[in-house]
Amino acid sequence: MVFKPSPVTPVTAVLLAEIYAKAGAPEGLFNVVQGGQETGSLLCHHPDVAKVSFTGSVPTGQKIMEMASKGIKPVTLELGGKSPLIIFKDSDLENAVRGALMANFLSQGQVCSNGTRVYVQKDILPEFVEEVVKRTHAITIGDPLLESTRMGALVNRPHLDKVLSFVEQAKKEGATVLCGGEPFVPSDPKLRGGYYMTPCVLGDCTDEMTCVKQEIFGPVMSVLSFKTEQEVLQRANNTTMGLAAGVFTRDMTRAHRLVEQLEAGSCFINNYNITPVEVPFGGFKMSGIGRENGQVTIEFYSQLKTVFVEMGDVDSLF
Amino acid sequence: MVFKPSPVTPVTAVLLAEIYAKAGAPEGLFNVVQGGQETGSLLCHHPDVAKVSFTGSVPTGQKIMEMASKGIKPVTLELGGKSPLIIFKDSDLENAVRGALMANFLSQGQVCSNGTRVYVQKDILPEFVEEVVKRTHAITIGDPLLESTRMGALVNRPHLDKVLSFVEQAKKEGATVLCGGEPFVPSDPKLRGGYYMTPCVLGDCTDEMTCVKQEIFGPVMSVLSFKTEQEVLQRANNTTMGLAAGVFTRDMTRAHRLVEQLEAGSCFINNYNITPVEVPFGGFKMSGIGRENGQVTIEFYSQLKTVFVEMGDVDSLF
Amino acid sequence: MVFKPSPVTPVTAVLLAEIYAKAGAPEGLFNVVQGGQETGSLLCHHPDVAKVSFTGSVPTGQKIMEMASKGIKPVTLELGGKSPLIIFKDSDLENAVRGALMANFLSQGQVCSNGTRVYVQKDILPEFVEEVVKRTHAITIGDPLLESTRMGALVNRPHLDKVLSFVEQAKKEGATVLCGGEPFVPSDPKLRGGYYMTPCVLGDCTDEMTCVKQEIFGPVMSVLSFKTEQEVLQRANNTTMGLAAGVFTRDMTRAHRLVEQLEAGSCFINNYNITPVEVPFGGFKMSGIGRENGQVTIEFYSQLKTVFVEMGDVDSLF
Amino acid sequence: MVFKPSPVTPVTAVLLAEIYAKAGAPEGLFNVVQGGQETGSLLCHHPDVAKVSFTGSVPTGQKIMEMASKGIKPVTLELGGKSPLIIFKDSDLENAVRGALMANFLSQGQVCSNGTRVYVQKDILPEFVEEVVKRTHAITIGDPLLESTRMGALVNRPHLDKVLSFVEQAKKEGATVLCGGEPFVPSDPKLRGGYYMTPCVLGDCTDEMTCVKQEIFGPVMSVLSFKTEQEVLQRANNTTMGLAAGVFTRDMTRAHRLVEQLEAGSCFINNYNITPVEVPFGGFKMSGIGRENGQVTIEFYSQLKTVFVEMGDVDSLF
Repeated sequence: MVFKPSPVTPVTAVLLAEIYAKAGAPEGLFNVVQGGQETGSLLCHHPDVAKVSFTGSVPTGQKIMEMASKGIKPVTLELGGKSPLIIFKDSDLENAVRGALMANFLSQGQVCSNGTRVYVQKDILPEFVEEVVKRTHAITIGDPLLESTRMGALVNRPHLDKVLSFVEQAKKEGATVLCGGEPFVPSDPKLRGGYYMTPCVLGDCTDEMTCVKQEIFGPVMSVLSFKTEQEVLQRANNTTMGLAAGVFTRDMTRAHRLVEQLEAGSCFINNYNITPVEVPFGGFKMSGIGRENGQVTIEFYSQLKTVFVEMGDVDSLF
Repeated sequence: MVFKPSPVTPVTAVLLAEIYAKAGAPEGLFNVVQGGQETGSLLCHHPDVAKVSFTGSVPTGQKIMEMASKGIKPVTLELGGKSPLIIFKDSDLENAVRGALMANFLSQGQVCSNGTRVYVQKDILPEFVEEVVKRTHAITIGDPLLESTRMGALVNRPHLDKVLSFVEQAKKEGATVLCGGEPFVPSDPKLRGGYYMTPCVLGDCTDEMTCVKQEIFGPVMSVLSFKTEQEVLQRANNTTMGLAAGVFTRDMTRAHRLVEQLEAGSCFINNYNITPVEVPFGGFKMSGIGRENGQVTIEFYSQLKTVFVEMGDVDSLF
Repeated sequence: MVFKPSPVTPVTAVLLAEIYAKAGAPEGLFNVVQGGQETGSLLCHHPDVAKVSFTGSVPTGQKIMEMASKGIKPVTLELGGKSPLIIFKDSDLENAVRGALMANFLSQGQVCSNGTRVYVQKDILPEFVEEVVKRTHAITIGDPLLESTRMGALVNRPHLDKVLSFVEQAKKEGATVLCGGEPFVPSDPKLRGGYYMTPCVLGDCTDEMTCVKQEIFGPVMSVLSFKTEQEVLQRANNTTMGLAAGVFTRDMTRAHRLVEQLEAGSCFINNYNITPVEVPFGGFKMSGIGRENGQVTIEFYSQLKTVFVEMGDVDSLF
Repeated sequence: MVFKPSPVTPVTAVLLAEIYAKAGAPEGLFNVVQGGQETGSLLCHHPDVAKVSFTGSVPTGQKIMEMASKGIKPVTLELGGKSPLIIFKDSDLENAVRGALMANFLSQGQVCSNGTRVYVQKDILPEFVEEVVKRTHAITIGDPLLESTRMGALVNRPHLDKVLSFVEQAKKEGATVLCGGEPFVPSDPKLRGGYYMTPCVLGDCTDEMTCVKQEIFGPVMSVLSFKTEQEVLQRANNTTMGLAAGVFTRDMTRAHRLVEQLEAGSCFINNYNITPVEVPFGGFKMSGIGRENGQVTIEFYSQLKTVFVEMGDVDSLF
């Protein structure tokens, strides 16, 4: 297996390789290729790779799959998302607010399954927004190694700039910045070089806005309002991505009815972004191919061999 | 699902569509696209296709997979083979001969899983060849609707010409035509237009010959000799394909030991080309991706949706 | 397999045997033993029976299992129940009423999984009872072959007498007959000999009453009231039986929380007595052993054989 | 779970309980009951036991199952065996001899799955016996904590006496003691009190002899001869037990053909008594009910709960 992490990824892939080696994995089983563009271009030079697996953007996924086509290699791809989180007026509001924060600000929003399109039923929109903004203001930004910190820095300068430009673009397209969305300089001098920003909540969003259509991969929550179940289902599915989706409601029938129709690999009812390792994870539509985690993963990384053992004579036409 | 049969395939795909319709399949579920090149080019115009499945040559498979890459579509491919059939001296010779004939002459050799590289242990080569040639001579060619017929016509003129040219090429490269390999004109006048040939056994073959390396898809058996298990295993696996493989021996330990190491999706011990619908079928290496038949097929044509139902409150960092 | 139907069961077992025979079941595979006591006493004379399966009362199940102990035979038992149906005040009342009627009056109440202990949250007890009684009055009793009929006759005279005596006993113990519970003579002369009764709703029931503790197997619904979830869960589980249980509520979290703790083989949320053949059915506690229906059934009627094939030499201490 | 070890079992069960406790098993989950008769009589006083599991003799199993019948408790029983080991003349003799020794003398023969009825094809009987006897003589008896020791003491005096009496009985019934079968006093003074005997090979055995029909549970191998496959299959299955069976042959077709027909829970081809924990273990016929080891075990120690969630309205007849 060849593992090609993003060029901006820290040393985790190498640490993983070291852990595997210590655990006794045979030499040559798990290989890390670093540096270069985020194109996975080295993968196609390995004719013996039985399985190509990748996490990244859609164009990179397309490129990987195209390269895999030359060697007829099966691929597992996990390519990000633009997942909807739907909050009905009969929700437990406290839980819904917590869920929306977890769905957007965990790891500075750098989580592929984040529920960045937050659809709130019109009747409860004001109180939901008030509470979300209040808590977003209260998020402690700083050194991620401190217990009290709730948000650290983005991964690098270009990425911070990109996230901030999404906020600018949202303003131009008519969204209201309810809080955050600014560069942030921590008071601790040793953090001065970090790529920090204040977590952002965007109000008055519509489905056509760039912030609602494109993956931002930063701490930017877009809040939209809806009236009916049927309407929000159609809007939630109106995307080429399909990694995750969430529903908050006390009505179990509605929750299951929506979950059945939401086009997403992971569906959360009354929670968001919980990903236990024993449960399969992966995308519908352009969010990916295959699944990771859970027992089913083995099937995506192995091949079936059918063996026939003849117990008698060969039946022959000839 | 869009089913694109080969342009030279008879009406079976349409008949299948009619059967599905009669059985109640919803309109639009199963679509047949006919004519054109064998490129499956129409497939990429269907953005809603959840799964692309194809049977054909390696280049076509690569093309399909490349097109699927644009839409991040999972593919199931079955792309033919050049499968080995290994016959040890301790085999039941009668069964081994029957197996070799079934592995090469069924459906005029137009079977993707055929065992066209017949490796025979040196000690029994003369008697094996004598018996195979005797029976090949006895094969009745003619109208496939008659009970007594054992071999019909190839699918069209270009394909017949291609198969015959493989025989010519084999002669040039040093193989010996032990029988057949000629165009054949049946005595029945109504069969005169058919693309018939006599089934062919090639002796003195070596691994480098074109007839041993390329898929012929016609009634041409290449016979090779080997000395040791280790040698024949290495030679059997020395191919980019991996659809099927067969072993004839009375030694169960050896049979299972070989089957474990043969790089092929379907392995036959003491038989060949039995394909019950309840058993998965598909290739290793460039012979394909995914499996057909059996319960496991459902997994290749469906997507897992993970659903979380929260029973308590949301744990939140924020 | 030996199938010993109840002595009061109609000819369905024989019809089933005929259907199996027509479908090609080998002679001797499925055997019906009729008549005698409901003890299954003949079963132990069949030493070759691989699996004993039984539907009946607890004492009969104990007897069957004791007999099976002599031959160390695995048993599958389905032994009836006294299942709770819990209706919360936030339920859709229309659906809850329908569910309670289905849970009690289907097949004249002669259904082992019936939800005969109907726990209704105090706040909605009056309106629930009013609606249930109104609809129970409206049930058309008569010829089961007529489209308009909703309830037929009980299986025989002793069983009708037994069911009616349960109603008498309930009155003595303090329950109120809200409707029904009387013998019924249809106007159609040809039905005069039938064992009919009017469907009965008992109010003011308490957990200690005989009608709430024992399986009646007739059209008698016992209505109880409850205040809290925790209380009703404890009361619902306070039985030696565990065949089924039902919960009506709009609160999904509560529904799943209860279902997790209800000690019953089949749990219904917002419905009752739906038993599709692809879903396993069977009891917890003294309601039985094993499961019927669904793929898992095969495991209860077959034995695993583990086969080791040695690929090398025997490792030996000696 | 209540674990009732044999009264002559050493402290292993208690050690196991300690290991479970250290591993974090909740208090009360795993209970060991010691002393008393080997009847498991205490089990029936535990009304909450969800699953009764037992290893022991057939009468004990019958008693356990009868007690379980009172509470309608599912049982898993493993009750010993009298397993056949069939050695064909085309076997690898060296491996067959090793297999026969492993099948009889491991743990002084105190292994329930032992292959104590060794059927040897007539043609190779003399050489098989010669080799087995030679190696049996060479077995080092003594302190089980020494690396060089191959056989220790039996579990107690009454059991040693019982095993020796089986040898005496075999002699009376016409068997020939080819080696061993005598009490043994090790030279090391500290082992003087141990219940040692020399491992015994009995020749000239027939199917009617006590040593061939009853479980000895000691180091006593009974050798029988056979002529044909069909004959030996019938004789191998002619027992009420069915825990294990073994076949040595180079003929894979024969091996699988026999294994399909042998009535035993574990079948070994060209080996014996290998029991990896990931593979199910348990008996056919009177050797037991249920399986231990492997993933399937979970099914025998858990109950299925079927949960229906209604997504719409209740369909009702009433």
